[in-house]
Amino acid sequence: MASNLLHILPPQRLLRPLAVPERLLLGPGPSNVPPRILAASSRQLLGHMHPEVLQVMDDIKVGIQYAFQTQNKLTLAISGTGHCAMEAAFLNLVEHGDTVLVAVNGIWGQRAADIARRLGASVHELLKPPGEYFTPWDIEEGLIQHKPSVLFITHGESSTGVLQPLEGLGKLCHRHGCLLLVDAVASLGGAPIFMDQQEIDILYSGSQKVLNAPPGSAPISFSEQAREKILRRKTNPPSFYLDMRWLANYWGCDGEARRYHHTAPISSFFSLREGLAMLAELVSGSRQAKARLPTITTVRVPEGYDWKEITAFLMDNHAIEISGGLGPSLGKVLRIGLMGCNSTSRNVDRVLHALRDALRCCRRSRL
Amino acid sequence: MASNLLHILPPQRLLRPLAVPERLLLGPGPSNVPPRILAASSRQLLGHMHPEVLQVMDDIKVGIQYAFQTQNKLTLAISGTGHCAMEAAFLNLVEHGDTVLVAVNGIWGQRAADIARRLGASVHELLKPPGEYFTPWDIEEGLIQHKPSVLFITHGESSTGVLQPLEGLGKLCHRHGCLLLVDAVASLGGAPIFMDQQEIDILYSGSQKVLNAPPGSAPISFSEQAREKILRRKTNPPSFYLDMRWLANYWGCDGEARRYHHTAPISSFFSLREGLAMLAELVSGSRQAKARLPTITTVRVPEGYDWKEITAFLMDNHAIEISGGLGPSLGKVLRIGLMGCNSTSRNVDRVLHALRDALRCCRRSRL
Repeated sequence: MASNLLHILPPQRLLRPLAVPERLLLGPGPSNVPPRILAASSRQLLGHMHPEVLQVMDDIKVGIQYAFQTQNKLTLAISGTGHCAMEAAFLNLVEHGDTVLVAVNGIWGQRAADIARRLGASVHELLKPPGEYFTPWDIEEGLIQHKPSVLFITHGESSTGVLQPLEGLGKLCHRHGCLLLVDAVASLGGAPIFMDQQEIDILYSGSQKVLNAPPGSAPISFSEQAREKILRRKTNPPSFYLDMRWLANYWGCDGEARRYHHTAPISSFFSLREGLAMLAELVSGSRQAKARLPTITTVRVPEGYDWKEITAFLMDNHAIEISGGLGPSLGKVLRIGLMGCNSTSRNVDRVLHALRDALRCCRRSRL
Repeated sequence: MASNLLHILPPQRLLRPLAVPERLLLGPGPSNVPPRILAASSRQLLGHMHPEVLQVMDDIKVGIQYAFQTQNKLTLAISGTGHCAMEAAFLNLVEHGDTVLVAVNGIWGQRAADIARRLGASVHELLKPPGEYFTPWDIEEGLIQHKPSVLFITHGESSTGVLQPLEGLGKLCHRHGCLLLVDAVASLGGAPIFMDQQEIDILYSGSQKVLNAPPGSAPISFSEQAREKILRRKTNPPSFYLDMRWLANYWGCDGEARRYHHTAPISSFFSLREGLAMLAELVSGSRQAKARLPTITTVRVPEGYDWKEITAFLMDNHAIEISGGLGPSLGKVLRIGLMGCNSTSRNVDRVLHALRDALRCCRRSRL
């Protein structure tokens, strides 16, 4: 082999500079990252087993415990984005043949059902039209009928803007011998959640929404009951990267000496640590209307307008990102995210002004 | 529930500033990140479907094609660290009951065998003592005996410092109806690799070694034959996050309109893009001795010395990280990484000076 001949030449497009325009991100996430967290992302690397990095991981653990309001020992960040945490939850909890009940009122329930099926679970779906939420009676009916070992429900359904009330669901699940798994990717930090009080068994989120860090790591926590189910598994989960028994050790959650498991996304941990620190420094509370997700405001697309024209108009003329619907809400709503450092009244004014401009300038089809 | 009462108080340790000392990282990776790539990591975010981000992803694709020397359409970066790419390879290629042959001469072969077993493959190990490499005759014997559909081999075995010669292995595998899967996490960019010429079917690496970006994304590429095996699958892989049929679409590899799949680690993509750009700007070649991994130099621990004392001495007195052995080489070798911007003669002098100092100052046990 002619080992010093390159057959594929250096691509010209890589010789051009990286172009990243400044833009106001008011979509359902990611949102803009404040300077303090961007600075953390660009700190020089350390080794993934250096004491300072283990210290950052310990900081992240207590930061997540605070954000989730839990004392769970098995609390850590997954080395991937929010979706990876969803998989980590199912991969570790579910074995072939387990029965899983999934509450579906938008895209995240659909995804969860898909993942559980890939793992060989017997999956039952509890369906609600997009935009509605589940009552404890809906849930209890499903628990009685299907006798699942895990119930999945989405706290902040970002495709429709629904905030699912969680009160009483944990107790209900436990009365029926079931674990409660909650997706809080789009809601954490923007809507109250109390993992221990609400008896949530598995809770996860992402770094890129209210925590205001770039996507790349994902907080997750397991109750004692969930941890025991994992320890009782008869088979290994079909992933080593996400195997919670290994991760528990790497994150110092099992009381034993930490062993190398995988090379962690160190810069993501730096920025997640700072996002959690900024949350810990906050003292203000938050208010909410019933079943209205405060982080993502959904607005019905006005009659006669095309949502795509409106979002494109805001991007092209105001450098503002907002988003259309997703999954069941596609074509029906606009989604405006106000998270982290973007959650200011000035930005509310800016987006309202831009929307007024869009209503004036976008074509309106004949009614 | 008293929803405005926090039971877990803001952790004090998060109110302290993030501490990241400057250190020269000459371990087996991650290595130090040059200013240009750190700057890319701290650029403001964009949406994961914005045209500029899709542009960055296209840049990454051609950058990987250049680094791997391949024209494979199915070429992209995984949203996780190198280990996650190893899993993505197996998850997509292997179905329950497939036969996999794994060449084990260090820790990475052991890990690969573990992952393939988790996926229900029938796994056979081809064993060599740590520090040795496989000849084509070793490989052919295994292919004839076990008739695998996939052979896994490590190009740069970072636990022992061995560079596996790849010449002829692709042709050999194809003659026996087997796909060749190569781990190049520790070798890519530091030792020549020619995916198409060498008939490698699946090749992956990490961002944090020679490419000089922080860990968080991982280049991977699939030959046409490997892609066809994935498309022929009878079952879905046990992961949605890593499902290559979805990722192929998200990365624009299948010619169809790109759909949202997951929120990508956008900052990691910025820095990986810059790492690949810097590789494309390089024109110099590289030289190597047979079976000697140029990125990680292994040095036998001198008789009578404790490796832990030497590595601790360098860290404490010279702020230099080097590493001990891993897996089969544990206790036997020191591992010195010279990668990316750390690969300078000044750093060679610095580490040699520090090692001389260590030999003088560390306790030597009585022989």
